[in-house]
Amino acid sequence: MFYHDDELQFEVEVQDPDPQYAKMLQQAIGGAEGEMRVALQYMFQAFAVPAEKQEIRQFLMETACEELGHIEMLATAVSKNLENASDEARREAEQDPIIEEMMHTGQPRQALSAGLHAMPVDSNGNPFTGNWVVASGNLAADMYANVMAESTGRLLATRLYEFTDDPGMKKMLSYMIARDTMHQNQWHAALEDLGEHRPVPASFPQEEENGEYNYAFMSTYKDERDDPEQPWTQGEAPDGKGEFSYTPQQPGGGQPDLDEMIDEMYNEVN
Amino acid sequence: MFYHDDELQFEVEVQDPDPQYAKMLQQAIGGAEGEMRVALQYMFQAFAVPAEKQEIRQFLMETACEELGHIEMLATAVSKNLENASDEARREAEQDPIIEEMMHTGQPRQALSAGLHAMPVDSNGNPFTGNWVVASGNLAADMYANVMAESTGRLLATRLYEFTDDPGMKKMLSYMIARDTMHQNQWHAALEDLGEHRPVPASFPQEEENGEYNYAFMSTYKDERDDPEQPWTQGEAPDGKGEFSYTPQQPGGGQPDLDEMIDEMYNEVN
Amino acid sequence: MFYHDDELQFEVEVQDPDPQYAKMLQQAIGGAEGEMRVALQYMFQAFAVPAEKQEIRQFLMETACEELGHIEMLATAVSKNLENASDEARREAEQDPIIEEMMHTGQPRQALSAGLHAMPVDSNGNPFTGNWVVASGNLAADMYANVMAESTGRLLATRLYEFTDDPGMKKMLSYMIARDTMHQNQWHAALEDLGEHRPVPASFPQEEENGEYNYAFMSTYKDERDDPEQPWTQGEAPDGKGEFSYTPQQPGGGQPDLDEMIDEMYNEVN
Amino acid sequence: MFYHDDELQFEVEVQDPDPQYAKMLQQAIGGAEGEMRVALQYMFQAFAVPAEKQEIRQFLMETACEELGHIEMLATAVSKNLENASDEARREAEQDPIIEEMMHTGQPRQALSAGLHAMPVDSNGNPFTGNWVVASGNLAADMYANVMAESTGRLLATRLYEFTDDPGMKKMLSYMIARDTMHQNQWHAALEDLGEHRPVPASFPQEEENGEYNYAFMSTYKDERDDPEQPWTQGEAPDGKGEFSYTPQQPGGGQPDLDEMIDEMYNEVN
Amino acid sequence: MFYHDDELQFEVEVQDPDPQYAKMLQQAIGGAEGEMRVALQYMFQAFAVPAEKQEIRQFLMETACEELGHIEMLATAVSKNLENASDEARREAEQDPIIEEMMHTGQPRQALSAGLHAMPVDSNGNPFTGNWVVASGNLAADMYANVMAESTGRLLATRLYEFTDDPGMKKMLSYMIARDTMHQNQWHAALEDLGEHRPVPASFPQEEENGEYNYAFMSTYKDERDDPEQPWTQGEAPDGKGEFSYTPQQPGGGQPDLDEMIDEMYNEVN
Amino acid sequence: MFYHDDELQFEVEVQDPDPQYAKMLQQAIGGAEGEMRVALQYMFQAFAVPAEKQEIRQFLMETACEELGHIEMLATAVSKNLENASDEARREAEQDPIIEEMMHTGQPRQALSAGLHAMPVDSNGNPFTGNWVVASGNLAADMYANVMAESTGRLLATRLYEFTDDPGMKKMLSYMIARDTMHQNQWHAALEDLGEHRPVPASFPQEEENGEYNYAFMSTYKDERDDPEQPWTQGEAPDGKGEFSYTPQQPGGGQPDLDEMIDEMYNEVN
Repeated sequence: MFYHDDELQFEVEVQDPDPQYAKMLQQAIGGAEGEMRVALQYMFQAFAVPAEKQEIRQFLMETACEELGHIEMLATAVSKNLENASDEARREAEQDPIIEEMMHTGQPRQALSAGLHAMPVDSNGNPFTGNWVVASGNLAADMYANVMAESTGRLLATRLYEFTDDPGMKKMLSYMIARDTMHQNQWHAALEDLGEHRPVPASFPQEEENGEYNYAFMSTYKDERDDPEQPWTQGEAPDGKGEFSYTPQQPGGGQPDLDEMIDEMYNEVN
Repeated sequence: MFYHDDELQFEVEVQDPDPQYAKMLQQAIGGAEGEMRVALQYMFQAFAVPAEKQEIRQFLMETACEELGHIEMLATAVSKNLENASDEARREAEQDPIIEEMMHTGQPRQALSAGLHAMPVDSNGNPFTGNWVVASGNLAADMYANVMAESTGRLLATRLYEFTDDPGMKKMLSYMIARDTMHQNQWHAALEDLGEHRPVPASFPQEEENGEYNYAFMSTYKDERDDPEQPWTQGEAPDGKGEFSYTPQQPGGGQPDLDEMIDEMYNEVN
Repeated sequence: MFYHDDELQFEVEVQDPDPQYAKMLQQAIGGAEGEMRVALQYMFQAFAVPAEKQEIRQFLMETACEELGHIEMLATAVSKNLENASDEARREAEQDPIIEEMMHTGQPRQALSAGLHAMPVDSNGNPFTGNWVVASGNLAADMYANVMAESTGRLLATRLYEFTDDPGMKKMLSYMIARDTMHQNQWHAALEDLGEHRPVPASFPQEEENGEYNYAFMSTYKDERDDPEQPWTQGEAPDGKGEFSYTPQQPGGGQPDLDEMIDEMYNEVN
Repeated sequence: MFYHDDELQFEVEVQDPDPQYAKMLQQAIGGAEGEMRVALQYMFQAFAVPAEKQEIRQFLMETACEELGHIEMLATAVSKNLENASDEARREAEQDPIIEEMMHTGQPRQALSAGLHAMPVDSNGNPFTGNWVVASGNLAADMYANVMAESTGRLLATRLYEFTDDPGMKKMLSYMIARDTMHQNQWHAALEDLGEHRPVPASFPQEEENGEYNYAFMSTYKDERDDPEQPWTQGEAPDGKGEFSYTPQQPGGGQPDLDEMIDEMYNEVN
Repeated sequence: MFYHDDELQFEVEVQDPDPQYAKMLQQAIGGAEGEMRVALQYMFQAFAVPAEKQEIRQFLMETACEELGHIEMLATAVSKNLENASDEARREAEQDPIIEEMMHTGQPRQALSAGLHAMPVDSNGNPFTGNWVVASGNLAADMYANVMAESTGRLLATRLYEFTDDPGMKKMLSYMIARDTMHQNQWHAALEDLGEHRPVPASFPQEEENGEYNYAFMSTYKDERDDPEQPWTQGEAPDGKGEFSYTPQQPGGGQPDLDEMIDEMYNEVN
Repeated sequence: MFYHDDELQFEVEVQDPDPQYAKMLQQAIGGAEGEMRVALQYMFQAFAVPAEKQEIRQFLMETACEELGHIEMLATAVSKNLENASDEARREAEQDPIIEEMMHTGQPRQALSAGLHAMPVDSNGNPFTGNWVVASGNLAADMYANVMAESTGRLLATRLYEFTDDPGMKKMLSYMIARDTMHQNQWHAALEDLGEHRPVPASFPQEEENGEYNYAFMSTYKDERDDPEQPWTQGEAPDGKGEFSYTPQQPGGGQPDLDEMIDEMYNEVN
């Protein structure tokens, strides 16, 4: 079960509020590469771990909980980028500059629906979706999903880092980038433990695969093209269980031959 | 640009049509782990490759095109699992058994909207979404997304393989599982080429990360818990640039301290 | 920030696993009335609370954290309803009955994508969406959203309670229904504190409203119909600031009179 | 069944067309707080009312029909905010200023897909979704959903009122805010009739709830924290059927103890 | 503006309630081919009609209003297919057969979220989406969208007609199919008026099109294939403004030649 | 199966990169009127064609493949509109102007998630959805869906043509508009072949329709209104099987009379 305290996980300060940056930060909250995704992903993966693998459940839950704290940090950063400097300055201005900016950022909902606070949406204003969450029941597949989530997440964080000059935001992102470094490393460490590069799922018997096509790079080029002699067309495959080859042709399986559909479907042509 | 011919990429035969299996195959067409996702993912990744990396564009496009052919194979398989044995047999029956089954599978749209053919939806009937497609502009991130897509894709294919006794379906899936083995291996080969285990993006300067927290496994357990001495809490990190440590506490960054929002937002409490 | 420990918040036992019930429980995880919604809703509401209202932030966060624990309980319940009794029994059967059931429940993704575990989807298999989360920046509006979320949530829980005979499931739901009772009461208590029945937002000046129509029940019946003399057509309005009346006619505002659109839009008729 | 006439329900005039304001008005058409939501919500609630409660069906349908008229008013307002002043002025300008603005508002679809007219989308450009519509089959739950919809709807309308100086728009919104005042009051009046503050659904027998936890405010704070002595931790609960108490601890239900999943799922760890 | 009365547009009787059929009817309510789509589509098209084309606005609004009545009819049909025969019979049964059926239809939300009534979702349980609504600002494009909506709508209605033996349902559908016949005809009549077969938008100057490719059927077959001599490869084109030809090759436009992206994007390969 | 080569289908040059125009082009990639929709629509329609109608399958597949090439062209155009002029110029500027623009266009994801490249989303940033794809199993319905898709697609292309002065973009769009002219014509040619204006599906027996209402224009105006004497209220219907008439009244089907729902649903009023 879960607990909280009153502090943020790491300090969140904003020197120069910037509504456009608030919008960009939303990508790190509710986007495909964001913290809601990883928090829930690690959590649902943990929920599926059987009793005898308690250390894996803990491994996942430790990080799930950390990511919840990142959502809180980013939400605070969004609010602070939308806050007004002072009440007086605001009243003096004929029109509120923050509101004016919101109307131009393409995300008026942040003003209209949320009163200038964080929302569970991405930087384009699309709502977070459970579709992002991968919890496959297979630990290796989950670990690759986690490496990928942290890779695109760290890529996002570094891009956000470049797009601001605010020292408070840079400090917060420097911390988050560091955590993404750690998380990429920890999922890789787990994969090393499982035996890297083995095709997932490793337990499917190799003899039930089609043995002619499981290490052949298949060209779909219109005309036959020579082997480009790349690391993926020759040499030992990374899984150590086959040798790459190159085939300039797709096998071909004859024309599809569907029957006419039944009357009740009104599938006739006119 | 793209071409086609009249043949399937590999033969698709169904001995015993099974509407429920048709529904399951939809996951491999329009689902998160399906062929529409990988075909479009490799295509959009290819579209972003600059001129001087032509071999990478080709690498991606070769496989994108192959996956388009897999959509066609699976769509044919869905239709064949929904086809009726014979017109006569059907009319003799008081009620069409295929229709009856469709009504029970929870996906009546396949009868109502598509006349018993394949649709761009997953096995739960949810439409395919562009959300599945990852093309980040960073090759390493893209390759991890590809490894992940093929891992969950092969996991799906092996599960589908177990859920059928139809020899035609097993043969088709044995081919597809083989291709997924190849594809996992080829993306791994590309990652080896880029220098594996380097945190993505590798070019972000390490000195701009928070140096205190980029190799520390951070526990979020309610009470302090000892280092579990796992591969991710001690030893050299997979990226070779740091040493794992264990910290039982989150840093803590003080309480968030938001101002009151402005009047025009009607954010008051009552 | 957030913490966890290794225990569930309340015990989760399943005597007779039932895949169909697992599917129904998904509504309480990822559905409109589910726990992901309320956990994230209370959390995003808390994230927006200004510093001087710390007790409100705590009020919301206490319950947000409790709801995270409910997700964990329900996810465990889903897994337990999908678990096999014994490995032996399963192998003896020609076909796995759980798998067979899954194929019939209309949610094969639970087998295909999640290996028979919980997913962030509802009982129809639709993914959780950030759209469910209401955090408006206005406390009274948020409280009504919370009362509504707990009302439909408790309604769902009581329906789930009726649809099972499993004593473990009934015990778990009896606990959850109790918590929903508490939560409905606590949001009502907060509303009482704010002054109930005041139109939200209460601070909008009444004189800027159209004074002719703010307490009039407006009939849209085709022909004029007499005042039905209901509590909403006569007597003092609940907000205490007006008297209900009945008007059998909509005001009428003349015909809309749009100009032709400009050429660049190709809005012409042919 | 439904009828119409040629007039708007209330006059809609725009003095100074403003494309950005058109975009904001979309929130009141297709957004979570918008008129499509309430029109359809009251309609689907009405569709479910049994014959002997005809007055309730009428109550709901009267207002559903009124809200349909609000969609029409707002759609007219959107078109008028996007209309050009005069054909001549437009041709004189080197570039059409309205088009230029549309390209900057982050919602080019209004030009590209709708020729500068209203669309069933919200102010972020997200399509209206049936997810917004709550019709639970339980009248009290529905009424709370209605109070909440009108609360966030009126909040939206007051925010829109602040964001414009156009006298036509202010007049239209003054009318709509008045109607939202009425609608909030009328749903409250219905709730008073049903017996307010009773936990929904009121008919679930209290003795089947867990009696230990249905009036206890449960803290999830990391460390034990004293009773904050708030209206929700002490005193009689609003439903009048229990006394609030404070518990600093979650009950705790032991560790989840899932079995290993079956072979066909390829749920093994490598 | 809109009005209603207390009657259905046409009688809705159900002799033998059938929960599975209720689910299928949902496709005609909230699905791509359903009544919510056409009601809103015609309404939004009407909202965009300029003042001098009042007869077109009326034409569209007349039918929009009729379709609202169809939603009501279908919603009533759904409820009646989910109603229990008698309270006594139900209590006698150990388990409620309707509930049992609902659990098997793959749409438990109809029980859990709506208390066995209609919902704004399709037959797969996916929510209605504003995406269905086409209102382009161009009357001819809108008319083709309407023909298409009524074509797939009538196709759906005829399929639903086949899938039931209930005389009440057959009578209701016979009425709805008749209305779809009328509506297809009326949109065709409007298109005849506009000059059929003219490429939409007709006002785009033909000389600004690429004149080499606007009447050429372009083969994308892998190898050159002979003109199949079909109505679309030879003879006068339906718009009367060109002659069909056949070209076995795509023009070819050289290789794409993108620059490397900038540093801040971390688009490098490692 | 599918093939490709290294060239674009038609040249794509951009003289003056324009990030806002890149955003608008996204509508033609991933939007309702875009190329992903038609490519997949024609493909799924082709997948459903039975063996004896091979020429129809080819007809559809030829064009599906062409549209895939249009996605590639448009994606290249998006990238080229987001590319920087020169590396030097960029470094000289204090702030990158392209990035600055992206932050203002309301679609920051193009920078944050895709590194300034094309994405499978529309111009509002909403992801492509399989919902766009219509493949009904009925050829005539499919052809109307195709006419409609090409009509709104060409309308979009002509609007995009007006919104740019870039000669490269104008040339590309002139080609695409030409192809849309061809495609509208080819689907019309196929419809002529099937017998135009016949209500879809044509095979449903006319005598099973309600014969009183299948050629009557039904007014829903509040008060009885005279026949407006339009082409859709009098004269022969386009299908040649009936005569239009005008009826000022909806038939009326009595009041709906639903029973009370069962106890387990907690559908009571309080």
